[in-house]
Amino acid sequence: MADGSIRPIVEAFYQASAARDVERVVSLIADHVDWLVQGPIDVFPFLGQRRGKAAVLEGYREIARKLEVTGYQVEALLVDGDRAAALIRISSTVRATGKVMSTRVSQFSRFRDGKLVEMRGVLDSFDMVEQTIGRPLDVPGAGEQVSAT
Amino acid sequence: MADGSIRPIVEAFYQASAARDVERVVSLIADHVDWLVQGPIDVFPFLGQRRGKAAVLEGYREIARKLEVTGYQVEALLVDGDRAAALIRISSTVRATGKVMSTRVSQFSRFRDGKLVEMRGVLDSFDMVEQTIGRPLDVPGAGEQVSAT
Repeated sequence: MADGSIRPIVEAFYQASAARDVERVVSLIADHVDWLVQGPIDVFPFLGQRRGKAAVLEGYREIARKLEVTGYQVEALLVDGDRAAALIRISSTVRATGKVMSTRVSQFSRFRDGKLVEMRGVLDSFDMVEQTIGRPLDVPGAGEQVSAT
Repeated sequence: MADGSIRPIVEAFYQASAARDVERVVSLIADHVDWLVQGPIDVFPFLGQRRGKAAVLEGYREIARKLEVTGYQVEALLVDGDRAAALIRISSTVRATGKVMSTRVSQFSRFRDGKLVEMRGVLDSFDMVEQTIGRPLDVPGAGEQVSAT
């Protein structure tokens, strides 16, 4: 497939994401999408593996219940063959506490027949947890194990 | 710039990275590189912001002192204009404890005149800390704040 052919779809996906237009976002996702955003699902239940469009939509609803997304800035967007990669800065407020978060997220995706069929997300989850609880996490023993010289 | 022009350099960079050929990796990095891999620098001092090739090289040396990298698999590699994006699975052993880690890392980079001039890395840092200490992190209060319905 020539490069550029999926670019309009990718741009539509991220324009809809930035506009928090979940209906439009989900309309660009394939029914049997393979979706994985790694992170601590005990803390953030909207993370983790989701199979199929309905499960992804439920994830978006879960995010909306917990977080008010106040900013969505695509810092880099690459398209190459059937793949896209986006580096995104998301600002949000934790509804339960009013705490403000700023999170950098990367998304690697594949598109087929005009729809997103695979998503792999990575985010700075340790920082996200610390911002959520509003203070540094205690990491007992890590200093001796990794950071001591 | 036409797409594809930086591709040989990008491929050389990741071939050298996969081969743990730090000398070759650093030869492809610009003197005044702007380098940032987000994560808890108290736990992993090789993370964080590094300005200039010498600081990046010191970071690589720091990694080598703490971790024995046993696997480096590029799962996705995109090139678009002057940018590259890579999704990487790194396997390593923490030298101090013998603990085995598997970490997914994303790297967004820019190249100019055949050299890497900007790096933005994101990794699943919470999971990386938990794997390092070998047990789940205690996250007091997070359940009530974010994950409770």
